[in-house]
Amino acid sequence: MPYVEEIYLRGHIIDSLILPRTFDTVMDLGGDFDVLEINVGKHKDDPSFAHLRIRAESDAMLAEILDNLMVIGAEVASTADAQSKPAPKDGALPPDFYSTTNLPTEVRVDGEWIPVADIEMDVAIVLDRERRRAKGLPMAFVSAGEQIVVGHEGVRVHPLERSRDTELGFSFMNSDVSSEKPKRLVIEEIGAEIKRVKAEGKRVIVVGGPAIIHTGAAAALAALIRAGYVDALLGGNAIAVHDVEAALYGTSLGVNLKTAAPVEGGHHHHMRAINTIRLAGGLREAVEQGILTEGVMYEAIKADIDLVLAGSIRDDGPLPDVITDVLVAQQTMREAVQNAGIALMIGTMLHSIATGNMLPAHVRTVAVDINPAMVTKLADRGSWQAIALVTDAELFLLELAEVLGVGR
Amino acid sequence: MPYVEEIYLRGHIIDSLILPRTFDTVMDLGGDFDVLEINVGKHKDDPSFAHLRIRAESDAMLAEILDNLMVIGAEVASTADAQSKPAPKDGALPPDFYSTTNLPTEVRVDGEWIPVADIEMDVAIVLDRERRRAKGLPMAFVSAGEQIVVGHEGVRVHPLERSRDTELGFSFMNSDVSSEKPKRLVIEEIGAEIKRVKAEGKRVIVVGGPAIIHTGAAAALAALIRAGYVDALLGGNAIAVHDVEAALYGTSLGVNLKTAAPVEGGHHHHMRAINTIRLAGGLREAVEQGILTEGVMYEAIKADIDLVLAGSIRDDGPLPDVITDVLVAQQTMREAVQNAGIALMIGTMLHSIATGNMLPAHVRTVAVDINPAMVTKLADRGSWQAIALVTDAELFLLELAEVLGVGR
Amino acid sequence: MPYVEEIYLRGHIIDSLILPRTFDTVMDLGGDFDVLEINVGKHKDDPSFAHLRIRAESDAMLAEILDNLMVIGAEVASTADAQSKPAPKDGALPPDFYSTTNLPTEVRVDGEWIPVADIEMDVAIVLDRERRRAKGLPMAFVSAGEQIVVGHEGVRVHPLERSRDTELGFSFMNSDVSSEKPKRLVIEEIGAEIKRVKAEGKRVIVVGGPAIIHTGAAAALAALIRAGYVDALLGGNAIAVHDVEAALYGTSLGVNLKTAAPVEGGHHHHMRAINTIRLAGGLREAVEQGILTEGVMYEAIKADIDLVLAGSIRDDGPLPDVITDVLVAQQTMREAVQNAGIALMIGTMLHSIATGNMLPAHVRTVAVDINPAMVTKLADRGSWQAIALVTDAELFLLELAEVLGVGR
Amino acid sequence: MPYVEEIYLRGHIIDSLILPRTFDTVMDLGGDFDVLEINVGKHKDDPSFAHLRIRAESDAMLAEILDNLMVIGAEVASTADAQSKPAPKDGALPPDFYSTTNLPTEVRVDGEWIPVADIEMDVAIVLDRERRRAKGLPMAFVSAGEQIVVGHEGVRVHPLERSRDTELGFSFMNSDVSSEKPKRLVIEEIGAEIKRVKAEGKRVIVVGGPAIIHTGAAAALAALIRAGYVDALLGGNAIAVHDVEAALYGTSLGVNLKTAAPVEGGHHHHMRAINTIRLAGGLREAVEQGILTEGVMYEAIKADIDLVLAGSIRDDGPLPDVITDVLVAQQTMREAVQNAGIALMIGTMLHSIATGNMLPAHVRTVAVDINPAMVTKLADRGSWQAIALVTDAELFLLELAEVLGVGR
Repeated sequence: MPYVEEIYLRGHIIDSLILPRTFDTVMDLGGDFDVLEINVGKHKDDPSFAHLRIRAESDAMLAEILDNLMVIGAEVASTADAQSKPAPKDGALPPDFYSTTNLPTEVRVDGEWIPVADIEMDVAIVLDRERRRAKGLPMAFVSAGEQIVVGHEGVRVHPLERSRDTELGFSFMNSDVSSEKPKRLVIEEIGAEIKRVKAEGKRVIVVGGPAIIHTGAAAALAALIRAGYVDALLGGNAIAVHDVEAALYGTSLGVNLKTAAPVEGGHHHHMRAINTIRLAGGLREAVEQGILTEGVMYEAIKADIDLVLAGSIRDDGPLPDVITDVLVAQQTMREAVQNAGIALMIGTMLHSIATGNMLPAHVRTVAVDINPAMVTKLADRGSWQAIALVTDAELFLLELAEVLGVGR
Repeated sequence: MPYVEEIYLRGHIIDSLILPRTFDTVMDLGGDFDVLEINVGKHKDDPSFAHLRIRAESDAMLAEILDNLMVIGAEVASTADAQSKPAPKDGALPPDFYSTTNLPTEVRVDGEWIPVADIEMDVAIVLDRERRRAKGLPMAFVSAGEQIVVGHEGVRVHPLERSRDTELGFSFMNSDVSSEKPKRLVIEEIGAEIKRVKAEGKRVIVVGGPAIIHTGAAAALAALIRAGYVDALLGGNAIAVHDVEAALYGTSLGVNLKTAAPVEGGHHHHMRAINTIRLAGGLREAVEQGILTEGVMYEAIKADIDLVLAGSIRDDGPLPDVITDVLVAQQTMREAVQNAGIALMIGTMLHSIATGNMLPAHVRTVAVDINPAMVTKLADRGSWQAIALVTDAELFLLELAEVLGVGR
Repeated sequence: MPYVEEIYLRGHIIDSLILPRTFDTVMDLGGDFDVLEINVGKHKDDPSFAHLRIRAESDAMLAEILDNLMVIGAEVASTADAQSKPAPKDGALPPDFYSTTNLPTEVRVDGEWIPVADIEMDVAIVLDRERRRAKGLPMAFVSAGEQIVVGHEGVRVHPLERSRDTELGFSFMNSDVSSEKPKRLVIEEIGAEIKRVKAEGKRVIVVGGPAIIHTGAAAALAALIRAGYVDALLGGNAIAVHDVEAALYGTSLGVNLKTAAPVEGGHHHHMRAINTIRLAGGLREAVEQGILTEGVMYEAIKADIDLVLAGSIRDDGPLPDVITDVLVAQQTMREAVQNAGIALMIGTMLHSIATGNMLPAHVRTVAVDINPAMVTKLADRGSWQAIALVTDAELFLLELAEVLGVGR
Repeated sequence: MPYVEEIYLRGHIIDSLILPRTFDTVMDLGGDFDVLEINVGKHKDDPSFAHLRIRAESDAMLAEILDNLMVIGAEVASTADAQSKPAPKDGALPPDFYSTTNLPTEVRVDGEWIPVADIEMDVAIVLDRERRRAKGLPMAFVSAGEQIVVGHEGVRVHPLERSRDTELGFSFMNSDVSSEKPKRLVIEEIGAEIKRVKAEGKRVIVVGGPAIIHTGAAAALAALIRAGYVDALLGGNAIAVHDVEAALYGTSLGVNLKTAAPVEGGHHHHMRAINTIRLAGGLREAVEQGILTEGVMYEAIKADIDLVLAGSIRDDGPLPDVITDVLVAQQTMREAVQNAGIALMIGTMLHSIATGNMLPAHVRTVAVDINPAMVTKLADRGSWQAIALVTDAELFLLELAEVLGVGR
């Protein structure tokens, strides 16, 4: 195996699984390695160090191995600067572009490591060598000629190390999706975490699906908003329309319970609710005109939090507030999640995955769904910081509202 | 189609779907029918009447059609007495035995209709012609020579008519398994129903699985027992062992949360808990010896409610209290559910289906599981009286305890 | 109850459950009824007739009851013409607009019933009185001043009657989502139905999610397209990108199997695949430039079938072929499903529901997903013509390809 | 932390995750450790060695840590013999008994390591010091006075090391439950593994639930039995009764498909099928009397494979062949799985978990269920040798029969 690169691993590389994952990755991808040096800390708090030589059968294999090792936290030993090439056309990248992770990332420019701003999963790094600046940019927004980082040299990633001394829920339940765990305790922990996030001046993001309204949990979410516990609400047309329907006709609950038939009865209210808001000109206008006087949307507008409703092809209507172009919607969502400290993702896979993709790895995320498949998908993208709860969205919100003392 | 029988349908045969289901059944099974007479009530409260002639291509087809129509509530027009034959050997029936439903059933003896006692799904009717008594009996318990009702003549079944004027939950949500409904309201309704059942002097049956303990909902169930809201607790070895482990080691919660690994750690406590009770001689002995001092099992023994632990092949140990022969366990469960007014089935499919099979159709059942497949299976066996809730067993019990004012 | 309207019911109103559903609906919504006349056919093939008087406590209640009864197939007895009002502004409707079902619908103009074109769920009816034409139009595309049908008078809907004599799968399994049924037989029936649809000159629509590619079922779908069994393929960015990745790198399968980790390894190929197509200018360009030479997208382009890729907020990239505005995407999908005879919806909830909403009720739909919750959601929107299969998308496609003799 | 014990770790302790899991376990359980010596192999094939000092705050904590480390493969450094105490009464153990894992285990007697026979999860080790024999024994079968191993000294466990060079499916997919993987390839691998197991003279165990019959996959399983690919079939009353019903009435398929209603129609056949076998005296007698002439049970009896039907409280009847005492059933199952090389567990959680508990860790197991929750539960008990497939039991068996060339 003639293609060779040396890497360093530092930190809690054994109990954070960095070393074994490195070995796994190299061998899973067909490569081999030699251990050049290894120092294991004598005590659990001592950092360790390893120096490995990676070998591969081709340049492509070596590149793929390094790609993956960098996610884990390996630092390429060679000390060259980051390389870049101009974007060949608007919205497209050089073929060997470096695709980011959602971890803190640095690039080496003139021998100096500079941080990459706006980091998120799977974006390109645009380099401004003169200003010594680097930032993450989604492929679609790259302009022809911008300098794009390519290859792996001169890029390093800082993995989140697993912390043992942090609180209960977030440190230990990260990979866990079972419904057979004591969730009440976890919800208390989430409540405490929300308070910490607010105290740190960071933002609480809620991503929500229409089940929040169907199940009668709207009052709990509305109370959380009113009490100032929510800084941004991300969702789609459905949650907004269902909420408006409940507010306008007072029947969402009555009708759902009585007919148990989402198609009959409720359906007409559904379309009439949409039409009412379209006639008014939008949600804010409906609030201002006294048409919409309660519910989640009302509270979000009254509290003036960031409200992003992103369009989807299954939307009825949609409401005038819905952003129908998905690229524009993504950019608006990106702005709304700036400075996020925690993200609660409740009962929606589409919006949750979309939001999750935009969050840096250090943002704690809580995915709540009664469907284990959905929660697993969300958690798979995860970091050490994700809690996946297989539980009932309605009862989750009722308990959380109680834990935070905002009533239900 | 030369094989012919006439039937009558009476009552709310149109809005209770009896008439259309009759038509469906006849045609699905390959038969045909003529409408001889039909009188539809002019108002929704007027009963209707229909007189049909059923035609089939064979005697077997006719028998199958009538079998199925009797479940719906059809009365065979011919007015012969019930026929019977002696059981050919212990534990076996005449080939053409009548297999019951779980609905109120009568047999005609000497021109007179007499009720069948101990009715449940799929049992034989043993006839004591001299004493004019009839009772349901599971096949395995029939003795050679007992008179067993055969064929369909002289048997009639009273279907539960759908009632519109009853309370919310039980009348309308019967076929509903969705998690996308407001469950808090349904739980309030269940609480009210439990109070009604107690006030009528009937019994509340709880069938529970080990998830109640894993999830930390044991305290809520214990509180319900202590407050007198549970008359019989049916389960298996697992719920009892997990409960004992939590009581003895105080760690079920701590350990589960910390390791998130049911196999490691907890496992040793699990086996030690079983051994402790085996050494003591049983759960009651462990309570009397001061070894077991809290938890669901402790409260059940203190309150002296019916506690039936039925064995299964996946049991570890098992505890001495577990009935290892499944036929004996079934009979003990049958006794425990006598005079039941409501049955809550939480987080266990095996015990829930077994119990459901033993209950007359009029007993209201609430099946709670986070897995829709399980709840659907339970509800499929159902009657108009079943609520199926796809929700979290833990949060369900916490909410129910709150609704009934027994703390959590 | 002073608000009164008379209705007629005709056809197989008892065994198609039209009569009992009518009774149910009236009472569920708080109304009452009198049976003025009822004639039940003496034999199962005889049509029946009923004439009812509906009573309600308010005008709104009466309107809601009639709304719902029209879905079932009730014809309002009064013989007035359809009423209309001008749309008050672009993209909004008069508050009392008539919201359609997906059933064949007629409106009465100058005493004559004329059919409504472009019918689908929840659209408005635009009336051109001069040309005596009516068509369905989504709210968002209505222009100020267009005449919109309002109220219920002069509108009638033709329910699909349940047919007993049709083939196995489509007539009887419509409400069925269980995995515990013999699915091989149903797949054979679906194969036969696809052949019938093609023979009738109608179109076969496939709506597909990325799991088709992950699971290695792409070859089966590609074979179906090559053999001419697919007329339109609807999906999103994900199915296309995964397919391109598999075609370009030949590794999607190898990598997935080896690492079992969708994040590592595959991820970089994923972004490189997107970039490659963006550099080429699009999927068709990539085929023409010899870059893309196999797979589902390749076959779809070679066969020149309708290919609609609709955007969503979770898209990476996206490919240049993806329609990023969801309203434009919806319109493109509407065109692609014209003259549909059958729609197969495989492994995607978002695109399946969106497509399902656009299909007239008579189009047979087959929803395939391993997740019962998804299949249930799709089937709930359904008609008598929907099969819901809880099964494995991969094995479904392999079996279907075998049934249709196109290899796997 | 004054309670101290030293341990050794040997083998591929880094890439098999033994070292990091050791660190994790110690810290999760509240202890601490010092690294006394560590030698990491320079190449991936070199074994490594570690010598650690474990510290704990109490004797109980130390015992729990060692309990858990032994499962991972730690060897306690102290070289004392195994300790034992007499069982205090029939069916109960000394409180500090050693509870086994399902891994190969040895105990030290007079300075010599001897293997423990009949090893399975969670049993006691009975020591016959004179004969130098040790065997695993379930708690319930221990007799008063037998010498039972206690504590951790003188016990060692050999973990299964993860092998990289073995075949595809079994080495890499062990923790994987997703339906979004190419399962056809895995089924081919399972077929190849079955052939290897047979070639090695080991046995193929099938554990099956009733869905195999409902779904029409019985013919595939029957063909596998007929071709000699199944050595033992474990199940319950339900699979046998459904199979008999299908064989006797030829209608299970027809009826299920036509009515889609398991309760109506099929139910009477169900009870009649049970009664027929009870009248005949059992399944074998029914075959000999020419009553049962096809199906899974017929083939199992004809091929004279081990057939174990274990009772459960939900059984109807049951058939005379069903073992109603669960402890007797467990012992019979233990005998049937002797010398197992592979176990296929299809569509049944109860029997699969029960069987899984009895298998040594080296037996490869394949758990197949469409419900991810079930498959996850099975896989959680797992070893490196378990494949969990979230797929359709019917299509799985059809594909497997095709792969093994036995028709479908």
